[in-house]
Amino acid sequence: MLRVGLVQHQHRGSKKANLDYAAQQIAALSKDGVVLVVLQELQSEFYFCQSEQSHHFDLAEDLQGSTVKTLSDLAKKYRVVIVSTIFEKRCSGIYHNTAVVLDQDGSLAGYYRKMHIPDDPGFYEKFYFTPGDALPDKQHGFAPITTSLGKLGVMVCWDQWFPEAARLMALAGAELLIFPTAIGWDRSDSQQEQLRQQQAWQLIQRSHAVANNLPVISCNRVGYEPSSEDHSCGIDFWGRSFITGPQGEILAESTSNQEENLMADLNLEDTEKVRRSWPFLRDRRVDAYGNLVQRVID
Amino acid sequence: MLRVGLVQHQHRGSKKANLDYAAQQIAALSKDGVVLVVLQELQSEFYFCQSEQSHHFDLAEDLQGSTVKTLSDLAKKYRVVIVSTIFEKRCSGIYHNTAVVLDQDGSLAGYYRKMHIPDDPGFYEKFYFTPGDALPDKQHGFAPITTSLGKLGVMVCWDQWFPEAARLMALAGAELLIFPTAIGWDRSDSQQEQLRQQQAWQLIQRSHAVANNLPVISCNRVGYEPSSEDHSCGIDFWGRSFITGPQGEILAESTSNQEENLMADLNLEDTEKVRRSWPFLRDRRVDAYGNLVQRVID
Repeated sequence: MLRVGLVQHQHRGSKKANLDYAAQQIAALSKDGVVLVVLQELQSEFYFCQSEQSHHFDLAEDLQGSTVKTLSDLAKKYRVVIVSTIFEKRCSGIYHNTAVVLDQDGSLAGYYRKMHIPDDPGFYEKFYFTPGDALPDKQHGFAPITTSLGKLGVMVCWDQWFPEAARLMALAGAELLIFPTAIGWDRSDSQQEQLRQQQAWQLIQRSHAVANNLPVISCNRVGYEPSSEDHSCGIDFWGRSFITGPQGEILAESTSNQEENLMADLNLEDTEKVRRSWPFLRDRRVDAYGNLVQRVID
Repeated sequence: MLRVGLVQHQHRGSKKANLDYAAQQIAALSKDGVVLVVLQELQSEFYFCQSEQSHHFDLAEDLQGSTVKTLSDLAKKYRVVIVSTIFEKRCSGIYHNTAVVLDQDGSLAGYYRKMHIPDDPGFYEKFYFTPGDALPDKQHGFAPITTSLGKLGVMVCWDQWFPEAARLMALAGAELLIFPTAIGWDRSDSQQEQLRQQQAWQLIQRSHAVANNLPVISCNRVGYEPSSEDHSCGIDFWGRSFITGPQGEILAESTSNQEENLMADLNLEDTEKVRRSWPFLRDRRVDAYGNLVQRVID
């Protein structure tokens, strides 16, 4: 049995305050027996993608930077695997939204550079983030990250809307799908529209569990973050993080837009059990899927 | 606005009785303004796949057979598009589980041969049905069917579990996804397991709406059908047909395991609207999806 947890929190004013909060919560979760902790997207920063400003590139760090160093120390101290994401500077001119996975000994087990980059009002990510490389080898594309606890199919936020991504992770041996995310409402949308969006967001991620017979952990930001743009009303990050089993069944769920930790016990062997009863992988029509690499079949 | 409907019913004892029931319900739905009617999988027959018996191949008909003829007459009489499925004899030794679409003038607008064929205890479909051809042309594979009401992405039952299928239909221009289906419970499963299965089944189909910004119509059989096999306890077809909008939102839903018709008004133009706000198709990583044609990435 694998006890997993996540930390859903507000931007607490500074990088130091965000990392301090993560440290406190990792300590608390570890005390409760959690051995895998998921943090939200760009955990140590405010959501700077609400506007396009060149000076925000100053926030980026490399894979040996202070955020990874802090997470590494925490992973080692509490003997937990930590999944988080950073604003990565790969080189001058190439920046990524990168998930990092620290193993229980503090080593960097691997990283994943966000493949699908969104861009819509308030989420100007295409300005900041170069998409992850497509090369399907162990360090690029949809490659699971091997840790002491298993192979983690870590993706980031917008990736969650693409069944192709989850499938490729599953085919490559992921035992668990994990989405650090930062999604919220535009206050100018109607309540019905907000509800449709939030339900669709949970639904699509639960569907990856169903289609691939894998547990899913989704950790979202929470709380209001204003925009520096005059015409924008900021974002209400909607929280509502959750953890599912391999049939998409909810095991733990934040039902509020408050700060909250979640925990659940996963039995990774259930995947084998479910795949014997619901043998989707057996029946995939790989001879008929070639057109999935087309933009449109026109 | 497109008023669509579906007919969820029990096996009524004979082919004639099943087709008579469909005729009555199509008349009733048409009176209420429905112009597109979806019937359940293998509507005119009992679910004969509960056992493997060669003489059941006698039930098969060709695309000019009596069931298609009856549906054609109904389509023309009520000026509705009808989506149903038949046990098709294509030639000696090649049988398919085939969706047929009759247009409002009674013509056969097109057909779709089930691509993903299940096989598990009580659902011995691989014995009966040759999988549909993969060739990605207009008459094979995941090709939408053009009707007077739009392009219909018709698939059949087990196809519903494969995000690849829905995606290919969407990329090929489907404006609506439609699943005639026959799924039910094994009475020996626990109530919790039955609930997980039924929820996963609704969830995966709603997720195709979300991922592709398309409405979904799913029409399931209902009621108990015994098996001729001594060791089997038969199938409780769970009904619970539903219709969603292009964000996966439920527009109509059967909440019971009773016979029931459903109706909903769809605005196919909503897809364009949703795709502008949630531009998933824009951001697909077609450069990184090549491995989707692999069985496993090992």
